Amino acid sequence: MYRTHNCGELSLRNLNNSVTLSGWVQKSRDKGFIIWVDLRDRYGITQLVFDEKRTEKEVYKIAQNLGREFVVQIKGTVIERESKNSNIDTGDIEVLVEKLTILNKAKTPPFTIENQTDGGEELRMQYRYLDIRRNPVKEKLLFRSQVSMAIRNYLTDEGFIDVETPYLIKSTPEGARDFVVPSRMNEGQFYALPQSPQTFKQLLMIGGMDKYFQIVKCFRDEDLRADRQPEFTQIDCEMTFVEQEDILTQFEGLIQSLLEKIKGIKKIPFPRISYDDAIKKYGSDKPDIRFNMTFCELNDLAQGKGFGVFDDQELVVAISVPGGASYSRREIDGLIDWVKRPQIGAKGLIWVKYNEDGTFKSSVDKFFNAADLSAWATFCNSKEGDLILVLSGEAKTTRTQLSALRMELADRLKLRDPNVFAPLWVTDFPLLEWDEQSKRYHAMHHPFTAPKPEHLELLKTNPAAVKANAYDLVLNGNEIGGGSIRIHDQGLQSEMFDLLGFSKEDAKKQFGFLMDAFQYGAPPHGGIAFGLDRLVAILGGEETIRDFIAFPKNNSGRDVMINAPSSLDKNQLEELALKSNLPQT
Amino acid sequence: MYRTHNCGELSLRNLNNSVTLSGWVQKSRDKGFIIWVDLRDRYGITQLVFDEKRTEKEVYKIAQNLGREFVVQIKGTVIERESKNSNIDTGDIEVLVEKLTILNKAKTPPFTIENQTDGGEELRMQYRYLDIRRNPVKEKLLFRSQVSMAIRNYLTDEGFIDVETPYLIKSTPEGARDFVVPSRMNEGQFYALPQSPQTFKQLLMIGGMDKYFQIVKCFRDEDLRADRQPEFTQIDCEMTFVEQEDILTQFEGLIQSLLEKIKGIKKIPFPRISYDDAIKKYGSDKPDIRFNMTFCELNDLAQGKGFGVFDDQELVVAISVPGGASYSRREIDGLIDWVKRPQIGAKGLIWVKYNEDGTFKSSVDKFFNAADLSAWATFCNSKEGDLILVLSGEAKTTRTQLSALRMELADRLKLRDPNVFAPLWVTDFPLLEWDEQSKRYHAMHHPFTAPKPEHLELLKTNPAAVKANAYDLVLNGNEIGGGSIRIHDQGLQSEMFDLLGFSKEDAKKQFGFLMDAFQYGAPPHGGIAFGLDRLVAILGGEETIRDFIAFPKNNSGRDVMINAPSSLDKNQLEELALKSNLPQT
Repeated sequence: MYRTHNCGELSLRNLNNSVTLSGWVQKSRDKGFIIWVDLRDRYGITQLVFDEKRTEKEVYKIAQNLGREFVVQIKGTVIERESKNSNIDTGDIEVLVEKLTILNKAKTPPFTIENQTDGGEELRMQYRYLDIRRNPVKEKLLFRSQVSMAIRNYLTDEGFIDVETPYLIKSTPEGARDFVVPSRMNEGQFYALPQSPQTFKQLLMIGGMDKYFQIVKCFRDEDLRADRQPEFTQIDCEMTFVEQEDILTQFEGLIQSLLEKIKGIKKIPFPRISYDDAIKKYGSDKPDIRFNMTFCELNDLAQGKGFGVFDDQELVVAISVPGGASYSRREIDGLIDWVKRPQIGAKGLIWVKYNEDGTFKSSVDKFFNAADLSAWATFCNSKEGDLILVLSGEAKTTRTQLSALRMELADRLKLRDPNVFAPLWVTDFPLLEWDEQSKRYHAMHHPFTAPKPEHLELLKTNPAAVKANAYDLVLNGNEIGGGSIRIHDQGLQSEMFDLLGFSKEDAKKQFGFLMDAFQYGAPPHGGIAFGLDRLVAILGGEETIRDFIAFPKNNSGRDVMINAPSSLDKNQLEELALKSNLPQT
Repeated sequence: MYRTHNCGELSLRNLNNSVTLSGWVQKSRDKGFIIWVDLRDRYGITQLVFDEKRTEKEVYKIAQNLGREFVVQIKGTVIERESKNSNIDTGDIEVLVEKLTILNKAKTPPFTIENQTDGGEELRMQYRYLDIRRNPVKEKLLFRSQVSMAIRNYLTDEGFIDVETPYLIKSTPEGARDFVVPSRMNEGQFYALPQSPQTFKQLLMIGGMDKYFQIVKCFRDEDLRADRQPEFTQIDCEMTFVEQEDILTQFEGLIQSLLEKIKGIKKIPFPRISYDDAIKKYGSDKPDIRFNMTFCELNDLAQGKGFGVFDDQELVVAISVPGGASYSRREIDGLIDWVKRPQIGAKGLIWVKYNEDGTFKSSVDKFFNAADLSAWATFCNSKEGDLILVLSGEAKTTRTQLSALRMELADRLKLRDPNVFAPLWVTDFPLLEWDEQSKRYHAMHHPFTAPKPEHLELLKTNPAAVKANAYDLVLNGNEIGGGSIRIHDQGLQSEMFDLLGFSKEDAKKQFGFLMDAFQYGAPPHGGIAFGLDRLVAILGGEETIRDFIAFPKNNSGRDVMINAPSSLDKNQLEELALKSNLPQT
């Protein structure tokens, strides 16, 4: 037996017990006549003591040569510490060692296993198994496990059934790019890895499973942006005989139960906003509502006064920055430079200081007098001391720019407290969006989303105006989940494929099985999927997902630790009836 | 709101309640003046009643035209049934319908949605969504979900952490064949889908995660045998600072807890047998011990008596069939034919009837007298009324043949009761097995399995004799799990790769990351993996796994419902820098 206790559980209750521990040498302090060693495992740290007087010579000698990260087993007696350490659970005791066995030596690790020293991204990823020993990473993985289990328990208690759907499925080039898997037994044919189990969960509803969930890996072969992974984990859910309201209520329950269980946060509100309102008020379909700074549209007040930057523009829109009137000229210039960066792309930024004394000072004093500016301030609900910032231009672009500025200012003003949780349902998404490049409609959510019943007629006359019973759950400015009521009628699904530019033949080839299924008694159904990586990160108070994933890939989709992807054995390719344009080993 | 109740919950407690239900029309009986409709959902069946006198004319008319599997919503009043049905939970009541809405019509399904009528394997798989509506399939999927959750709860309670390991990993052509995934961002390179998360779970142990589990899909591109799937689900577990005993105890706990929770079976024994003994006693490393009929080796008693079929053979081995002495000549001839079939391949079968009156009658009376046969019977612990069956030949082949005969007889004698559960640990597996074809050793378990410490020396002198701390858990004659104590020493792992015929270069290329990791303080560790599909099937009292999988593939690895795999878009292949030897669309 390697241990009687782990390294996190001994206390004064164990005084004088003979114990066996195993773990890693966190550090060793040799005072010449006494050696203290911190022994670490997943559960904590226990202090070992080797004493020239009380410890056998041979044991003492081995202890003198222990290096960092050596794996050792000790047998000893629990004694009370002279100077206690209240920072750790085992801080009242130490173990006077009688027997010491080195289970495995360790080379000096490329970075030390401590909270703040990670050796940089590249090294951490290459030696991820060492990185995982560090508390910040270890805690995130434990936290993820805890959240996953809480999700499963909630959904199981609510009558959801965990059904595993297949990973080797069919390639459907609509949507994002598929990862494909050549089939050896069916030469020249390919499976695809699922971008989501969408069609399968719908088939489960048609199969009468009623309430389904699965925590499942999904795959998208997209050019990776920062903090995106080619494989990611989804909490995938679907329900039968439900309307949007049933789904929103059910999954408010899920998120509320997580916040309560994991964070001890009781009863927070889940306000709702329509997609159109979110865009108008926040310039974003995933607004962070932990803080205000909503948009106010100044077209009526600010146009027609001879200021060319505003006149003839589609939109003049402002936010009011609390306390911003005290910003120095340099600070304001900084903001102007910030919005002019190519990532944002604004041409400039108009500012109006609503001073504490009630006066106004602005970059457009030539065109607008105090009464004008006061009217802006009133309209924007600005208070003395605020700074009004105005952008103008084409509506969509300008809103996106101002939304970015709003988030930037919130960061600078520390309004985005990771310990505050502000969920928000965004509803009534458009069914379709027009794609200028391909000159056709794309599904905003996916091709299986149902139009609102009251908009069915519009499908033929004005598709762009059709709204869907589609919804996103936004948490602290991040989309953590999204779903919709699905089409369950074969005719409507067929019409939808037409609108999306599928030929009848392609629709049948790719989704014929689903259209067939709709003819055999498909019930009304709908669902939602949450991004587990992101959800866990936000609940953990972080914005980046990478350390909540045990073995993430880098921005080129590589696992630098195992060096994947890599070239194949030539005969592997031959067996698959494939040729690579590039040389293999 | 589609429903106030589901179809399985109304009872006399709800009498006179106004309720709304949604579901499928299971069947409809039109008596001319009254129509009964069975409405079905996941939860049960509720009887609806439409009565010419009490139901509005228009509603009644719609009810007359309801077809099987129509999806309907009704509003009505719960009333007491005249003739109650005690077979179903809702059998005391029926719902007198006031409002009836057809939510979706249904074509006549290709097979009826009832317990015993499945329309044959091909149709069932093509219309799996209809097949899933049938109770036998539905119940198996619900059962699987329940078992999965019980496993997760047990392991979580025991301190195991659920860690997701990556699906896009590195191809290692050792072992079974990998499914590969071409990388578009890293042209000419490939990921592989995991055959198991073996190396990752070991890295997690090196990373100090201590106790890991995951219920995870694994992939093997093997020629499919009956009841094998290219993708299958594993309960993957690993523990640090453990010896074999710790692991066996821990996972006896898991299986015991499942049997208790799911089957209500308390405290059953988990006997152990060494691999060598299992082979000698049962001719199999996964013996079914629900019944006896163990092997007895008759070489000493039966050779040297001038019977050519026995003399000079490596092994003469018998089983004693309880009550078999009463078999007719025709029955015995049937057994002889059975072992001579090419699938078994025996040349013949010697039989000895130990009659109820104590006399013997055998097919070898010419060579053996009553005293000889009596000695066999005594040696085999046979009783009056038994039939002794004897095979002889090369030891390994003969044992395999007799093992097959033993199982066949048990089936015929109904000794394999699916409601009896007999687990068995098989331990002390050989580390290596010699492969005649490639003239080299293969790892019996996998290349990361540690030899028993006391056999380390043998590695150099007699590798075939080295045993490992490797173990399988066998349940009712099926291997449901297997694992081992792993190598955690870089030198030993390197030696192991040498033995398995890896060049230093290949070992480094494929497993360099693991060998590196071993140098930074790798702790002793070991683990086990269970096949979830098989485990669930056996707990469910079945031997085939297919209906415990929602969307299984057929024996050619095809999903006939979605028609996968299939050909790709040409430009998908181009983007991957690949050419297929076969035409794409």
